[in-house]
Amino acid sequence: MRTVTYFFIFLNLSLAVFEEPAVYPLPFLVTSLVEVLCLLVFFGRLTHFAKVTFRNVFWKDTKNICIMVAILLSLTDLAIYGVLRIYNVSSIRWSRIVRPIFLINFAESRQIRRAFRSIRNTLPEITYVFLLFMFSLLMFSLMALKLFGERNLQTAEGLPYFKNYLGIVFDLYVLVTTANSPDVMMPAFDFSSWYALFFIAFVIVNTYIFMSLFLAVVYNNYKKHLKNEIRKLAYMKHRKMIEAFNLLKEEEGAQFVVREARWKELVKLVAPDISSSHRELLLRISDDEQKGFIDKKSFVQLADLLNIQVVTLKIRSHPLNQWMPRVYKSAVSQFLRSMVRHRGFVWTYDVIILINAVFIALDEASPYISYAEWVFLALYITEILLKVYTYEPRAFFGKNQFWNWFDTLIIFAALTATILNTTLKSTTKYNSQQILDIVFILRVLRLIRIVDSIQRFRVIMNTLINIVPTMLTFGGLTLVVYCVFAIIGMELFHGKIQFFPANSNAPYALECGNPALKDSLFARGKYCKNNFNNFVSSFIVLMELTVVNQWHVFANGFAKVTVQPAKLYFIAFHIVMVIIIVNIFVSFILEAFFVEYSLEKSEVETAIEQKIQELGMGVQEDKLQDEQLLDNMESDEHDLEGEGGTKRQTKGLVFKIASKRYRTVDALLQRMFEAEIPLEDEGPSFEEILNLSPAPAVPSNLTSECAA
Amino acid sequence: MRTVTYFFIFLNLSLAVFEEPAVYPLPFLVTSLVEVLCLLVFFGRLTHFAKVTFRNVFWKDTKNICIMVAILLSLTDLAIYGVLRIYNVSSIRWSRIVRPIFLINFAESRQIRRAFRSIRNTLPEITYVFLLFMFSLLMFSLMALKLFGERNLQTAEGLPYFKNYLGIVFDLYVLVTTANSPDVMMPAFDFSSWYALFFIAFVIVNTYIFMSLFLAVVYNNYKKHLKNEIRKLAYMKHRKMIEAFNLLKEEEGAQFVVREARWKELVKLVAPDISSSHRELLLRISDDEQKGFIDKKSFVQLADLLNIQVVTLKIRSHPLNQWMPRVYKSAVSQFLRSMVRHRGFVWTYDVIILINAVFIALDEASPYISYAEWVFLALYITEILLKVYTYEPRAFFGKNQFWNWFDTLIIFAALTATILNTTLKSTTKYNSQQILDIVFILRVLRLIRIVDSIQRFRVIMNTLINIVPTMLTFGGLTLVVYCVFAIIGMELFHGKIQFFPANSNAPYALECGNPALKDSLFARGKYCKNNFNNFVSSFIVLMELTVVNQWHVFANGFAKVTVQPAKLYFIAFHIVMVIIIVNIFVSFILEAFFVEYSLEKSEVETAIEQKIQELGMGVQEDKLQDEQLLDNMESDEHDLEGEGGTKRQTKGLVFKIASKRYRTVDALLQRMFEAEIPLEDEGPSFEEILNLSPAPAVPSNLTSECAA
Repeated sequence: MRTVTYFFIFLNLSLAVFEEPAVYPLPFLVTSLVEVLCLLVFFGRLTHFAKVTFRNVFWKDTKNICIMVAILLSLTDLAIYGVLRIYNVSSIRWSRIVRPIFLINFAESRQIRRAFRSIRNTLPEITYVFLLFMFSLLMFSLMALKLFGERNLQTAEGLPYFKNYLGIVFDLYVLVTTANSPDVMMPAFDFSSWYALFFIAFVIVNTYIFMSLFLAVVYNNYKKHLKNEIRKLAYMKHRKMIEAFNLLKEEEGAQFVVREARWKELVKLVAPDISSSHRELLLRISDDEQKGFIDKKSFVQLADLLNIQVVTLKIRSHPLNQWMPRVYKSAVSQFLRSMVRHRGFVWTYDVIILINAVFIALDEASPYISYAEWVFLALYITEILLKVYTYEPRAFFGKNQFWNWFDTLIIFAALTATILNTTLKSTTKYNSQQILDIVFILRVLRLIRIVDSIQRFRVIMNTLINIVPTMLTFGGLTLVVYCVFAIIGMELFHGKIQFFPANSNAPYALECGNPALKDSLFARGKYCKNNFNNFVSSFIVLMELTVVNQWHVFANGFAKVTVQPAKLYFIAFHIVMVIIIVNIFVSFILEAFFVEYSLEKSEVETAIEQKIQELGMGVQEDKLQDEQLLDNMESDEHDLEGEGGTKRQTKGLVFKIASKRYRTVDALLQRMFEAEIPLEDEGPSFEEILNLSPAPAVPSNLTSECAA
Repeated sequence: MRTVTYFFIFLNLSLAVFEEPAVYPLPFLVTSLVEVLCLLVFFGRLTHFAKVTFRNVFWKDTKNICIMVAILLSLTDLAIYGVLRIYNVSSIRWSRIVRPIFLINFAESRQIRRAFRSIRNTLPEITYVFLLFMFSLLMFSLMALKLFGERNLQTAEGLPYFKNYLGIVFDLYVLVTTANSPDVMMPAFDFSSWYALFFIAFVIVNTYIFMSLFLAVVYNNYKKHLKNEIRKLAYMKHRKMIEAFNLLKEEEGAQFVVREARWKELVKLVAPDISSSHRELLLRISDDEQKGFIDKKSFVQLADLLNIQVVTLKIRSHPLNQWMPRVYKSAVSQFLRSMVRHRGFVWTYDVIILINAVFIALDEASPYISYAEWVFLALYITEILLKVYTYEPRAFFGKNQFWNWFDTLIIFAALTATILNTTLKSTTKYNSQQILDIVFILRVLRLIRIVDSIQRFRVIMNTLINIVPTMLTFGGLTLVVYCVFAIIGMELFHGKIQFFPANSNAPYALECGNPALKDSLFARGKYCKNNFNNFVSSFIVLMELTVVNQWHVFANGFAKVTVQPAKLYFIAFHIVMVIIIVNIFVSFILEAFFVEYSLEKSEVETAIEQKIQELGMGVQEDKLQDEQLLDNMESDEHDLEGEGGTKRQTKGLVFKIASKRYRTVDALLQRMFEAEIPLEDEGPSFEEILNLSPAPAVPSNLTSECAA
């Protein structure tokens, strides 16, 4: 269901690739039919959603209204455009900018919606700082006009320097983004060294102080609102668990409790995919003294317990051990396996990787070096085979064994591509460029593995990998902003700038097909391919604008081929994307990093772990690295083999709390803020929860303590 | 003492302006004599310091050893250089780079030293992230070499594109700083749109993720170490107060106490400059029940009490009221004063400021507009005079009345400069450019005042003003880094690039006097004045390098006129200044901003305030804005006048805790972290305090809570 919805959302968004101005043009009839299909799917999804929720809840929810309005708008626009097209009147497909609304407003995109809501709540405060920043900009511009306006200075391009007020404001705004530093200063600086002071003061005040202040305001508010949302969720969860308890409770002595059988039924219902042994473990934690019932306090904990990923490790002996135990247990095989398990094995392959790096950097032309590639491939494949031989294959390719999967995939892809390339070369005497490029990339990617051998690097990498899901939210945010700006950009600048290959004879090929760009920095920088002529180009241009550098050259170039106010488009994009979204991205990385570095295990996790240990089903160390884990499993197995039947073998499996590395965004967020929420009592009512606002609810002493 | 030391430190640093290569050349004899003088002063300061501290403490302190070594090195170098100079052998004054050591190591620069210590402690962790970042850079470079190396592409300047591995590493490092985006991508992008993906992946991984990670690591560690330092200080303070108590204590019933007389003596000794009424107030707080003695708990609080700035407001009637009460109390005068106190008065002047802004923007040439300037000046002066007439002058020019001082200074400076300019113009028919520039700047600065009229802006401005002292620490850090790099830069690049005015006939004037720069971006951008030919130019270049944009043009330019490895100088500067110092600056602004926004009054402050209120000596509202405060004082005064003699008049003064706005950096820092320090018991011993390390001492639950 979820996948289908996302598929149609992205199909709908990607229509822009095929609609005029298209990368791959399709007839209008095809794209419009696909769009209608998408809208129908959305409508179907919405009606299904309406059926399963209460009527007043459904109609109160802004996001449902939003979707309905968006569907209506899209259909209207499509109809109008279609009719006008029949009469050959060209019009604008303005409804295309509402398409990202579907991405934001479907129930599946909770993260993105939350991020947008946080942005909306942050806006008032940003606005005040922004106004103050604009005031500072205007003041500095006024000063610049008075200081340099009548000097008749010239820029490096021979244009008049700081002559007109609006021009100065734009130039200084660009300087805030540092994109035209030091060019904008040079004419004044050449005239007198003292004028450098003006620009230094400007940069310190506006670039360093105000831009940091933006980050601070965004960070502070974003965190505050996110915390509030998470608190709402936590209260809600607590409240719902209490209601569930009240429904299921029975009297037992002086207190109300839930009996074991009922509890098991409930767990089976809400979490059908956990194993029965896992369920047994949870029961043992909830019903600590094995009284046959669960009291309120333990019952309420259930949601948290279910949220914690417990990895069930089945201790199996190696399949080869079962099929041909004699061979697998022979001296040669034992030696081989102990060799693979030895530290030296990892080091040997690290050295091989380094040698491989040198070979990659060397010239391909020599035949010896291209043969070497086969040797390296063979070595890597041997490594994987040896590891699979030594460790249990199902453990080696476990869900959480990121590096094993990464290695294997990269190496087999490289093998396939290299074979394909060699076949093509020998049959057609011709290298396929695409395949060769992929081979190159895969070869280099193989080298990344070396990072995992160094403990300190592994820690940083794990933090990074952990942050990835969070970054996907920002990918969503960015996608929405890019889509809207790309569609507007295509309407404004489509076809104004053309790209011609280097040897083209087209008129004004060097001026991007537009004489207005003669002698402009845009044409001189050979930026012609950066245009809004189709959806993909627009995305790349917007990416370059996000990186900020040279954005004024783009703004000036596109203003020259259209009208001066076109610069506003670029300024708006800068404000939205760089000042708001990128700052939120940075805030989030900061926050996630701090959490990753400082977060200890939660109370519930500790309780589970203790229970696991008590029951004698734990892995000895609880913070094992993955490779060590494999080793450890092996030695466990050996122990079992040797001793013939310990307590552990009776169960044949061990539990382990999944490492921090594989948490989801939501879990991470919840952990970030949950510690602050007191959950002793019944908590506020549903109504109160929904109306929580960030300011009063945060206890002031906590905030100050945490800011300190 | 402190001022003298700082004077000589800056004199010593500024010697670089006069030594070869000099801005204002002085004979070697003069500069060397001044340097010897400075060194003598430093030595004197050090011997004085040695006298007042214990011998083993003095010799254990690294900073004293540092200063001694630096003095010795400087003298040795000076002697060698002097002797070689006599024999006309040119050598390098290498000891000049040790000069910033004096700035860091004298006891006066605690802040800067603390910042450096934090950086040193942060280095190991940064190094690991940096190595991982370098690894990523090298991998991407390898990929780029394989993908683009054999395409025979050309850059916009017609140079070979991505041909040599080290060149690629440099280009991609520059791309991380975004300085050559999108130029570095264009040739590959023109060749095939798919290659844009490579650069997008590169920017996301290296610019966005790694650079944010640097900020996160710097922020996290800097905060951690700073917190540890502050904790050490707080424990130390606590410990010392307990020792003082043990020295002064007497037995009183069951407990040990300090008697009132002794306590007063002590306060007089340690804080001689507080008023006796302020002392009385502190006594009342410490000896809450007026028992005539102070117990241990209250005694230990004394240091905190003394740290809180209490403003003593003397309620005086207006001097004019004393001199000519009849005139001052006349109906006209009353009306005038109530008018000035009216909100409308502020609004009127806001409108005048806006009109003035328009006039400033208009052309100066018209005589009416230049007359208007006089009108505005007169209006502003009238405003100040009216305010002084209405409010008590000593209160109006109180220590904390920032905007009043700002206004008055700006307007009188503008008056002086305008008169001077007009006089010059009428006598010599010639505008002095410097004076005119100053007049322009002052005119625009006058407009800033409007910000103070809007409540929301005032809050942000107050935050900014509050952060200023903190930023001075970073000014110090920056100064040290700049000095070292400027001196190295001058040795490396001195004289290699020359600046010629636009109409010069010198050979290679357009190539900055160096044929090697022909057709380079450096010469084309007219960057010739950005050179290391003297100390001031070097500082400006370093400033531009800090802003980052176009730094690769500088690096390439200077590498062309010297040797290729010269680029390392620029890379080193980028790593030190941008990756470390600027990130610390941003961290600190973030932290200071959060504290400013979230910090409530501390317990001790609240205690003092309660006591003030209890004693009936408080200003009614305790969070008055400055202007309101003035109003309030006036009305207080009126009350007194009216009622003839309330309880308050008996004292004739009121107390008020100085607003957050005027705290020092140290106080701010202490407040930031003190809340977390439990100070119930005796605390650790001196030895333990000095050896505190950040990791174990921070209680883990606190950290996690605070990171959340």
